[in-house]
Amino acid sequence: MAVLSDLSAAIGLVGWDREVAMPPRGAEARGRQLGTLATLVHRELTREDVEDALVALEEHDGLDGDARAMLAESRRVRDRALRVPEALVRAEAEASSRCIAVWVEARPANDFPAFAEALRPLIEVKREIAGALDIGDEPYDALLDEYEPGARARQLEPLFAELRERLVPLIQPARERSGALLPERRWPSAQQMDLADRISRAVGFDLAAGVISISAHPFTQGNGPGDVRFTTKPDESDPMVSILSTLHELGHALYEQNFPIGYDRTVLYDAPSMGAHESQSRFWENHVGRLAAFWRFIDPDLRARFPEQMADLRAEDMQRAATRVTPSLIRIEADEVTYNLHIALRFGLELAMLRGELEVGDLSEAWNDGMERLLGLRPATDAEGVMQDIHWASGSVGYFPTYTLGNLYAAQLTEALERDLGPLEDLVEAGEFAPVLTWMRTHVHDRGRRVPTGELMREATGHELGVDAFVDHLRRAYVERA
Amino acid sequence: MAVLSDLSAAIGLVGWDREVAMPPRGAEARGRQLGTLATLVHRELTREDVEDALVALEEHDGLDGDARAMLAESRRVRDRALRVPEALVRAEAEASSRCIAVWVEARPANDFPAFAEALRPLIEVKREIAGALDIGDEPYDALLDEYEPGARARQLEPLFAELRERLVPLIQPARERSGALLPERRWPSAQQMDLADRISRAVGFDLAAGVISISAHPFTQGNGPGDVRFTTKPDESDPMVSILSTLHELGHALYEQNFPIGYDRTVLYDAPSMGAHESQSRFWENHVGRLAAFWRFIDPDLRARFPEQMADLRAEDMQRAATRVTPSLIRIEADEVTYNLHIALRFGLELAMLRGELEVGDLSEAWNDGMERLLGLRPATDAEGVMQDIHWASGSVGYFPTYTLGNLYAAQLTEALERDLGPLEDLVEAGEFAPVLTWMRTHVHDRGRRVPTGELMREATGHELGVDAFVDHLRRAYVERA
Repeated sequence: MAVLSDLSAAIGLVGWDREVAMPPRGAEARGRQLGTLATLVHRELTREDVEDALVALEEHDGLDGDARAMLAESRRVRDRALRVPEALVRAEAEASSRCIAVWVEARPANDFPAFAEALRPLIEVKREIAGALDIGDEPYDALLDEYEPGARARQLEPLFAELRERLVPLIQPARERSGALLPERRWPSAQQMDLADRISRAVGFDLAAGVISISAHPFTQGNGPGDVRFTTKPDESDPMVSILSTLHELGHALYEQNFPIGYDRTVLYDAPSMGAHESQSRFWENHVGRLAAFWRFIDPDLRARFPEQMADLRAEDMQRAATRVTPSLIRIEADEVTYNLHIALRFGLELAMLRGELEVGDLSEAWNDGMERLLGLRPATDAEGVMQDIHWASGSVGYFPTYTLGNLYAAQLTEALERDLGPLEDLVEAGEFAPVLTWMRTHVHDRGRRVPTGELMREATGHELGVDAFVDHLRRAYVERA
Repeated sequence: MAVLSDLSAAIGLVGWDREVAMPPRGAEARGRQLGTLATLVHRELTREDVEDALVALEEHDGLDGDARAMLAESRRVRDRALRVPEALVRAEAEASSRCIAVWVEARPANDFPAFAEALRPLIEVKREIAGALDIGDEPYDALLDEYEPGARARQLEPLFAELRERLVPLIQPARERSGALLPERRWPSAQQMDLADRISRAVGFDLAAGVISISAHPFTQGNGPGDVRFTTKPDESDPMVSILSTLHELGHALYEQNFPIGYDRTVLYDAPSMGAHESQSRFWENHVGRLAAFWRFIDPDLRARFPEQMADLRAEDMQRAATRVTPSLIRIEADEVTYNLHIALRFGLELAMLRGELEVGDLSEAWNDGMERLLGLRPATDAEGVMQDIHWASGSVGYFPTYTLGNLYAAQLTEALERDLGPLEDLVEAGEFAPVLTWMRTHVHDRGRRVPTGELMREATGHELGVDAFVDHLRRAYVERA
């Protein structure tokens, strides 16, 4: 476990460098280096003496609960690795490399047929991998299970159906009460990064064990308790993007910084799933960062760094810009009300592809029809439609639903936290983030990967996974507001 | 070879991050991660099927010269790895980790006895490793051979003796003609980094395949043709430090950027030795960077970035500051005339330790006596004496002499280059770096690690390794100047 943890940290750092520091001509070799490291992980996992060790431990009587959980998770990870033949691993790496390369060119050129031709063999390989893994009730489940262990398509379908049904009617009333964009002015990057630093310290991120940097696509990367990093991306025309992305990544980073120290260098030093991880980023981004109280709290910090830009703006104006609702074609620009409809569309399409009910070549039309049905917008180009995300091109099929699971869990966690601590609004207004973080530590972070997400969330919130808390939150924040 | 090259790039990147980005609390885990990667290198090198492959290739008739060289170098590296038992590798890692930790505290506390107690077992392990390696005529040779393949103590001893004899008489006359320090003023870091960028482009460093960053101790790190990085360290009270360190690291970086592309991901994509590598850094730092012509060449760039600071300074003042001679206790602050005496001292002491002629406990006194004899200065504390460098604490015994070899080779290469291209002074004054870089490519970079350093330098310069060119250079530049 320790060797795998060290290798995974090396992969993390080499990947971090790719986004943050690598010169353009380094890309090709970097891909090969990461491929070699992944091969070594596979080799370490599938060594025969690992089997002997696992069997010996499985037959051992004296293991405590933590050790049993480590053993079970190690076995699960090894089984996954053993089930997929190396030829299939290589085939996926090649198909996704090619598909990414095609996507990079096809997106700006709006060339869906080229993209479809590269995506088709990749989906085929994913289906073969799903067959080899043989997890769940249908091929899609095996792919989903990689990101969200235990989740199944048949459990997600009614969830997304209910979401669609309850979200669509909220859009119009939310738009009617929506605020204005910020007026045009320039917000220097250096000041935005300084603010990111200030916000991070305020909510409890330990910068002696952390780094904040800049990359084109913000992300978080944890390398054990002493080294957790995240990036943001200052947009000089709009500070909102980097403030909210800082809070989002901070949610991930605080989680990574607070796994139980006793699990360091084991398979349990992790979140139980991507959905659980996303619950933390969405909590800080949406349930803290879009509160009026948050904008009052950081108002002095904003003014200190942007005295001229803020001269005619009130905290309220900032909060209204942060909660603006307007249906958009692009997922990563979506507001909190419409975001999950973007995910519902993607989930439905990837599931249909894996079930053989949708041809890759028909994806563009199905996408455009779905967008029109859900958001009343029809993409004029595939660049702002089916080709907008890198996920499918990179082989991440079954990943999208975890974003929505994160949103649902975040709302349920917020309800439970407020039952224990009182209104979040009051805590945030006073800058009292410590009890909030402590609550999350106790109920989420401290479990590491020891228990499955469903169980962890049930114990933390007292409820099964559902959409009520989330829809209630949206109604209060977007429909019932003044 | 490709797997080892990828692993070594990963080690490089993880190490780069440690110096450039890692948060303080990440240090402990980082050490373990690098240890795990080193173990995996050892494991890959010593795999049994590697032996089969080597033997099959050695018995193969159809290999060309490059392939034969790759095979021989692979065999050499594998033999080294096989000869040192894993227990000894671990023992060295542990002893050096402990010794570094002690050194970090003992140096500021001026506690030589504590340092000696941690160094003694490390020297003992190094001696055991030398015994296991069994290379050359005496234990020291095996250690030296790791950094400078083929070099032997008995060959270096007369070289250092001659250097001592011929350098000491130069010091006083050089001091008498030495220039003044720059007057005190503030030189902002950001402008220094911008100048580093400008200088790098001017001499031919490809920034589409390179990175320049900042670290406490400047260094260069190559990860193949597409990604070569170096750091510098701006000192806001003195721009000279970062300009000369930029040129020094550029020498290393240009070498890394110009190994033959056909050797990428093989053992030949490297310099044949540390001394060869250092010849390049010293060439750009000392034979280009301390020329009056260089300071005239960058004068407009300096003025553009530092208009007020440069207002009353001439290019000549800058060059005189860059060639100031003043004996110092500290190696990394030493001028070109006295630098190799610092190395001579260290070489003599580490050789005596390995030969069992000097007890670790007597190192401090021997150091101070040697400094007094060579430079007429006696350290008041061990912090500015025997404990100033991290090298021994980190287990780098046999490394110091390569600095001097680099200086000697650089002077010999400069002589040869000027025979072919005419005075460097004229080329540099005109900013004509391209022919200079092309000459180095043709005679040094393009060979990669295919031929041993001695042979490479003999072919490039027409001479055996010696001190004449270097001493002539010093006499011209420091004694015969106006």
